[in-house]
Amino acid sequence: MIIYWGNRDPHLRLPSNPSLSMNLAGLETCTTVSFDDELLEDEVYIGGVAQTGAARKRVVAHLNLIRSYAQLENRARVESHNNFPAGAGIASSASAFAALTLAAAAAAGLAFSEAQLSALARRGSGSACRSVPGGFVEWRMGTGDTDSYAISIAPPEHWALADVIAMLSAAHKPTASTEGHALAETSPLQAVRVAGANERLARCKAALLARDFTALADVVELDSTLMHAVMMTSTPPLYYWEPLTLTVMKSVRAWRTEGLPVCFTIDAGPNVHCLTLAECAEEVKRRLRALGVPETLTALPGGPARLIPAEG
Amino acid sequence: MIIYWGNRDPHLRLPSNPSLSMNLAGLETCTTVSFDDELLEDEVYIGGVAQTGAARKRVVAHLNLIRSYAQLENRARVESHNNFPAGAGIASSASAFAALTLAAAAAAGLAFSEAQLSALARRGSGSACRSVPGGFVEWRMGTGDTDSYAISIAPPEHWALADVIAMLSAAHKPTASTEGHALAETSPLQAVRVAGANERLARCKAALLARDFTALADVVELDSTLMHAVMMTSTPPLYYWEPLTLTVMKSVRAWRTEGLPVCFTIDAGPNVHCLTLAECAEEVKRRLRALGVPETLTALPGGPARLIPAEG
Repeated sequence: MIIYWGNRDPHLRLPSNPSLSMNLAGLETCTTVSFDDELLEDEVYIGGVAQTGAARKRVVAHLNLIRSYAQLENRARVESHNNFPAGAGIASSASAFAALTLAAAAAAGLAFSEAQLSALARRGSGSACRSVPGGFVEWRMGTGDTDSYAISIAPPEHWALADVIAMLSAAHKPTASTEGHALAETSPLQAVRVAGANERLARCKAALLARDFTALADVVELDSTLMHAVMMTSTPPLYYWEPLTLTVMKSVRAWRTEGLPVCFTIDAGPNVHCLTLAECAEEVKRRLRALGVPETLTALPGGPARLIPAEG
Repeated sequence: MIIYWGNRDPHLRLPSNPSLSMNLAGLETCTTVSFDDELLEDEVYIGGVAQTGAARKRVVAHLNLIRSYAQLENRARVESHNNFPAGAGIASSASAFAALTLAAAAAAGLAFSEAQLSALARRGSGSACRSVPGGFVEWRMGTGDTDSYAISIAPPEHWALADVIAMLSAAHKPTASTEGHALAETSPLQAVRVAGANERLARCKAALLARDFTALADVVELDSTLMHAVMMTSTPPLYYWEPLTLTVMKSVRAWRTEGLPVCFTIDAGPNVHCLTLAECAEEVKRRLRALGVPETLTALPGGPARLIPAEG
């Protein structure tokens, strides 16, 4: 709802601006981690496929961090399953690194608080810190590694919103978020976007707590377009919008003018998150399909990341 | 090429930033003005149609300004013809007010210099000041009414560029430029866009004078997207891009990567100006049509506004 884009410290993934989001029930990553002293190296499977290269390397780096906290040397086997498309700008890495953090920390015997787990998840993927607590969450900038984490500002049942995601493409985006974040500072607009983020976050939070959809819509769309303006004016420019993205954006605005409570926000990808009241989700979905949107996913506010005890 | 958006003085149409453009040969307005002491009120015909309401009012205001300089009281008959669509974001008001200024000033007996005519045209429509001198022109901000005008920085023959305009819509845009300019200050991005305009103009001018297409392309596209970022983050937001606008933008960038010298700039409308070398204009046109662009207009660098002596 208030988007994270750009890091003040890329290594620690300390963000340039505070952010706010809603966790999505039903769009989930399930990850199993087992440390095993017989393994010679970490094994990483995503959707049953053994990973090599950059994807594995990023997971191994996160395991190394957890091993360093736990003073553990064993290699691990990681198996992860998503029930939604990865790398398409619907926060799959946030979900994945939140799940990995909870599973690996538990398997390593770390007794971390929610805040500590959130900060740890942040090291794997910035927005993963927001996937640890439940409901509507705020990622506070903090001053360093230990106090830059997300907290729940309202439980899932606070407001029956729905996120109807217009899936224009399930393809992997050409520029991954990590590289995109690194380009943020090359845009002449990033500094002013960051400078206004506290004020937009305060407006968004107030609208959310007051359940004021109109006020929420205005600030959420402004914040989203500000981020894409930064992306499109980076060097090199990043154009995540597709023609159909723009069709959906303009249609959503027209529908709201007609009285349907719906607004858009767009992550680093072409897909459009259409926020609406849960009771209007079917109508929004119907209209999106009529525009030619090939697929939609609908999610309600979701709870926190949770441990599923191993069987047997 | 470097776009004008926002006024520091809306009444005098003193711009918030300096700008730079290329006059277009062949896209012309032909306007005849005759002052007549038998007329009871100004008569304004555009394309043979008698104008009433806002369009007439704006012309009458401009005639009043010219009458005040000439100490003239007679009403005038104005007949104007465009050979291209008006109000569709291809600078029809710039062309129209440059033509009106030259014709009316001559008919009123004003012996104005080019700079004075340019400043006078600016009062009718800001960018009209750039349609008075020939070739590649720079509108200097100036300090007030008399020194905010455009000058030619290179003649039309300096560089054989072409503007292949992807005409996505010849419809009148929903928000006229005058109202759009007034919204510029409501965007959090306008101040930073304005702050960088001198530097972008200097880069653009240097690229133009050196005939460096690659350098020109980068700054022209950045400047265009900065303006649309301002528009889309205004209150209310203005979305001039259509889905096909974005298709053309992304395609133009891909073509340039492949080696075709072409870049885009977009005024306050959905149509896309594809700047290229004159020798590549046919190829650009062919590719635009293959994308589904219904119509294109091609123009080469044009000369100054000129008086055509009345016949007989």
